Amino acid sequence: MNIEEMTLEEITQKIYSLFNEKNYSAIKEILIELNPADIAAAFDEFPIETRNLIFRLLPKEEAAEVFVELEVDAQEALIRAFSDTELREIIDELYLDDTVDIIEEMPATIVKRILRNTDSQTRASINTLLKYPEDSAGSIMTTEYVSLKKDSTVEDAFKRIRRTGVDKETIYTCYVTDESRHLIGVTTVKELLLHEYDDLIEDFMETNTIYINTHDDKEIAVQLFDKYNFLALPVVDMENRLVGIITVDDAMDVLQEENTEDIHKMNAIVRTSEKPYLKIGVFETFKSRIPWLMLLMVSATFTGMIITAFEDKLSVLIILTSFIPMLMDTGGNSGGQASVTIIRALSLNEIDLNDIFRVIWKEIRVGICCGLSLAAVNFAKVWMIDKLLIGTEGITLKVDLVISLTLVIEIIFAKIVGCTLPIFAKKLKFDPAVMSSPFITTIVDALSLLIYFWLATAILHI
Amino acid sequence: MNIEEMTLEEITQKIYSLFNEKNYSAIKEILIELNPADIAAAFDEFPIETRNLIFRLLPKEEAAEVFVELEVDAQEALIRAFSDTELREIIDELYLDDTVDIIEEMPATIVKRILRNTDSQTRASINTLLKYPEDSAGSIMTTEYVSLKKDSTVEDAFKRIRRTGVDKETIYTCYVTDESRHLIGVTTVKELLLHEYDDLIEDFMETNTIYINTHDDKEIAVQLFDKYNFLALPVVDMENRLVGIITVDDAMDVLQEENTEDIHKMNAIVRTSEKPYLKIGVFETFKSRIPWLMLLMVSATFTGMIITAFEDKLSVLIILTSFIPMLMDTGGNSGGQASVTIIRALSLNEIDLNDIFRVIWKEIRVGICCGLSLAAVNFAKVWMIDKLLIGTEGITLKVDLVISLTLVIEIIFAKIVGCTLPIFAKKLKFDPAVMSSPFITTIVDALSLLIYFWLATAILHI
Repeated sequence: MNIEEMTLEEITQKIYSLFNEKNYSAIKEILIELNPADIAAAFDEFPIETRNLIFRLLPKEEAAEVFVELEVDAQEALIRAFSDTELREIIDELYLDDTVDIIEEMPATIVKRILRNTDSQTRASINTLLKYPEDSAGSIMTTEYVSLKKDSTVEDAFKRIRRTGVDKETIYTCYVTDESRHLIGVTTVKELLLHEYDDLIEDFMETNTIYINTHDDKEIAVQLFDKYNFLALPVVDMENRLVGIITVDDAMDVLQEENTEDIHKMNAIVRTSEKPYLKIGVFETFKSRIPWLMLLMVSATFTGMIITAFEDKLSVLIILTSFIPMLMDTGGNSGGQASVTIIRALSLNEIDLNDIFRVIWKEIRVGICCGLSLAAVNFAKVWMIDKLLIGTEGITLKVDLVISLTLVIEIIFAKIVGCTLPIFAKKLKFDPAVMSSPFITTIVDALSLLIYFWLATAILHI
Repeated sequence: MNIEEMTLEEITQKIYSLFNEKNYSAIKEILIELNPADIAAAFDEFPIETRNLIFRLLPKEEAAEVFVELEVDAQEALIRAFSDTELREIIDELYLDDTVDIIEEMPATIVKRILRNTDSQTRASINTLLKYPEDSAGSIMTTEYVSLKKDSTVEDAFKRIRRTGVDKETIYTCYVTDESRHLIGVTTVKELLLHEYDDLIEDFMETNTIYINTHDDKEIAVQLFDKYNFLALPVVDMENRLVGIITVDDAMDVLQEENTEDIHKMNAIVRTSEKPYLKIGVFETFKSRIPWLMLLMVSATFTGMIITAFEDKLSVLIILTSFIPMLMDTGGNSGGQASVTIIRALSLNEIDLNDIFRVIWKEIRVGICCGLSLAAVNFAKVWMIDKLLIGTEGITLKVDLVISLTLVIEIIFAKIVGCTLPIFAKKLKFDPAVMSSPFITTIVDALSLLIYFWLATAILHI
């Protein structure tokens, strides 16, 4: 049976039975057919006693590729099982940025073992990379890149790539530096291939280089990748010396993380961990959710106070109470839509702070359209269904009018609040995503109730 | 003054004054210093009468790169201003997938003009690409890639890349095909560079190739990029013949679009357009927001009916009304947190349908922790602040107990509803993101009210 056509479960079973038969060479053949990322994804499924063996059966380079893709706990278990020689071999095959990522997740004893088993030069680079702040460009870069001199020829460049390229994560973008490692230009293997062997690099290299500083936020790196379609981005230090590069696959990982973080923030979740859902403990999940729940619960005191203040009027016409949930939800949803749209547009750089009046003007018009349509449908629905069909007591034309008018006004307010708060947050250098829908909802709730009771007092004379 | 140090505004002003002085060669010098993506971003800011000229001053290849990055309306205005010769030159420089993207956005008259100005072979390829369904892998691929024969040597391969590579979007991944264009292997320029000139491709090419079908969803392509860190992904037709490739920059664009779509869906917005926020008209924005608002408003009829049913009891103890907003919001927020976390985990493939019981078990425990903490704080707050400090009438220990108990139970329910609905949606082949927080909120609202009134009846004997 062809490996490519087997499901993960079938492969796991096959490996297990071969393991029991001690037919290790057959296992090896299966593993070679599989992609490292697939082996890593399946690793958790392999019986625990087979894992170390499976890993040892992999060719060295592939073993490193699998290792990088494994979950942290699987990595830790393997390292504990490794001899020092095995550990050294794996680390030799890893790219530096991956080694650093692994070190950041491991307990101190394992970190010490890893550092003891690397040569002094690698150890120095690891220590430098570990020092960059968590969300900085420096923390996601690798120090392995191809650097060229400007007076080299294309032929020299290819010789250099052939000699040093095997250890580099990417060789396709080559950086031209001067004697003091300042970045003076950039070229690509495509350019090199399209020029003659005796052409000089400096004659065709791109000198208008876009780069990032080690201490810049990694989010900026992602924006540059998004804008310029790079395969790699050079990273320079404070003295503008080239110290590393960020590759597109790492940028894509950061992009996914940032998106997850934004989505969580927008829904009142404090992100405390980058681990996958099922690997995060109950208490940690609790900690990520309770702060906003608590804050929003306590701020709902205001809505309670508003209702208490109008209690006498409500008791006269208790039917008004039954529309409170609908009014609150519709207001909250309207405001949430606006805030989410604006938060996303800000993060995609589709709008900036100067657009605030254009944004408000647009949201007011959208609010009027939404408000009028919803009010019209609501007016008809309350009369036909609640009054005539169900026969709910206390509904009069004036009551219906109060509810429908509240809808129009609250929706317009909700849209304005929803679109301005994220922009103000950005102006105050907060992350706009903290102006989450739940937060907007809490504000809009209070506004909606005030509008509702004010209209009720004015129109129904209660 | 150095161009690199000037702000966009300064550059725009400089260009405008040079334009008035008719000093076109100075403008050209400025433009050459700028990156195409930056020129495109600034294009809207340039005075309208200078735009055609600025475009004509750009070197051909750069003009094409700028053109691709422009907004649709700017592209349309330029095409209208182009002579047929100019149009032909730009299209010659464009990659095929970009031409197709542009054609898809243009009015019919312009499409006809574009097709009239392409050679018959290109026209045929464009027509093929246009036929793929909107969200398919085929719709985002390009048909320009480097293909090699398995019995070529490394030297042959480099000759071929040098000869044909200039027109390809990426040359770094090379695809090995047989006589009937079936994909039989893949290799990279890195591999080629690290082998001897007389090595045969078939001796080192990777044969366990990962590919995608033209009709697969483009989301699958993005997942493959994310998992395997590709620079390009081959696309095959129903007969497994190689027909194109998807490049990593296009995958990144799709990833951003999908994220935006998910974020909008999760907040009850129907995405109708991929245009940036300010380019979408008021009516179109209205259309994207009204369906869910309307549906959710009408479904709030149930919460209204629940309140009406308990109206008599509420009128006895009207203080209960003032806690309805807080209970509804807290329940909604709790459920929203769970649903958003699960929707995101599903889309990142962190969990699948089989994990449903592990997910529910985890959410129940998180719900208990959140519920107990919030209830404790609420119990103290209602007594100390609402009763003793503000002196709200009608609050007794039993009332406080009803409210706090409701919190515990509704939060556990909210977490269960929030985590199960997205998984069920996925099981029924819907997009889990439709189980948005607003939707969950509406369900949790009804549940919370029922729990509240039931507890009130039981404990307060009203």
